[in-house]
Amino acid sequence: MDTLNLDNYIRKVPDFPKKGVLFYDITSILAQPEAFNYCIDSMEKLYSGKNIDAVAAIEARGFLFAAPFACRMNIPLILIRKKGKLPGKTKTIKYSLEYAEAEVEIHSDDVPQGKRVLLLDDLIATGGTLNAARSLITSCGALVPEIFGVVGLPFLHYDKILGDTPVRTLIQYQSE
Amino acid sequence: MDTLNLDNYIRKVPDFPKKGVLFYDITSILAQPEAFNYCIDSMEKLYSGKNIDAVAAIEARGFLFAAPFACRMNIPLILIRKKGKLPGKTKTIKYSLEYAEAEVEIHSDDVPQGKRVLLLDDLIATGGTLNAARSLITSCGALVPEIFGVVGLPFLHYDKILGDTPVRTLIQYQSE
Repeated sequence: MDTLNLDNYIRKVPDFPKKGVLFYDITSILAQPEAFNYCIDSMEKLYSGKNIDAVAAIEARGFLFAAPFACRMNIPLILIRKKGKLPGKTKTIKYSLEYAEAEVEIHSDDVPQGKRVLLLDDLIATGGTLNAARSLITSCGALVPEIFGVVGLPFLHYDKILGDTPVRTLIQYQSE
Repeated sequence: MDTLNLDNYIRKVPDFPKKGVLFYDITSILAQPEAFNYCIDSMEKLYSGKNIDAVAAIEARGFLFAAPFACRMNIPLILIRKKGKLPGKTKTIKYSLEYAEAEVEIHSDDVPQGKRVLLLDDLIATGGTLNAARSLITSCGALVPEIFGVVGLPFLHYDKILGDTPVRTLIQYQSE
C-alpha cells in the first residue's frame, strides 16, 4: 500500500465547474477500493494517538472520507451542512464566496465541549468554507487542533485564511 | 452489540422540513460511534457473501453509510448526485417529487457492466429518488439486486414504486 500513487486515482477535469478551472475529482478514488482504503488507512495513521475526540465534515464530499474515518477511529462524526438541512437546534455562520454569500450550519448540541475536533473536507482550495466551519465549531465550545483534506491546492493560499491551524493533506497540486 | 436498540439513537423532529412531518434524523446515529458502527457491522453481516460488486449511494446522507460500507467490503462506491455536481461524463434522469421535478446524475463510466450494484440511502420513504436511481444504474448496464436503507417508512408505500427489488432496512417505523 505504501507505493500507491494517489495522483493516478484522481481524475482531472478541465473547465469544471466553469471555464479555466481544473477540477480535481475524488470520485475516481471512491470507485477504486484500493485507493479509497489507502486514504482511510493513511488518515488513521496520521491521527491515531493524536487525541482526536471527534471529526467534523463539510457537505457533501467531506462526508465520504469522514464517515469511514469516524467508524475506524470510533469517534463521533459531526456534520457541517448548507443552511436548512439539519433538523435539530443549529448554529449558523454566513461567509463570503468569490461572487456570493453562503451559509453553513452545525447541530450545536453535537459539538463536544472542550474536546478536540478534527475538521475535514475532501479538497482544500481557498479555505473559505473551512474557515467558516472552524469558527462554528469553536463558537460551540470545542477546539480545532488540525484541518485535513485529501487533496490540497496550496497555490490558492488556504494557508493565509486558515492561519495557524495545521493543515495536512495526502496530496498537493502546485499549480492550476 | 446485538442488543443495541437503534431506535434510541434516532432523533425524531416534529414539523421538519415542514409542518405535519415527523423527521427521523440519523445525524444522532453518527454522533454516537457505537450506533454508527452497529449500522456498518449490520450491513456487513447482511451483504457479506451476497456477491455485491459495488454500492451506489444517494446524495448526501446516503454517502454517510455507503462510504464506510464500501471501505469495509472493499468494493467501489458510485455516487448519485443532484444535477451539475459530477464533473465527468454523466447520465441524467428526471423524476417527479410531490410538488416539483428533480434530476439526479451518475458517472456512467463508473457503473460496472453486468455487475451487481447495491443501491443505498439513509432512509426510505416514498422511494421516488431510489426508483429514479435504480433506472439510472440499470440503464448504464448493471443490475440492482437489492435496495438498502438504515431506516424504512413502509407506511409511505415504497414497496409499490420499488416493485420486486428486495428492500432491507435496519429499523422500520409503522406510522407518522
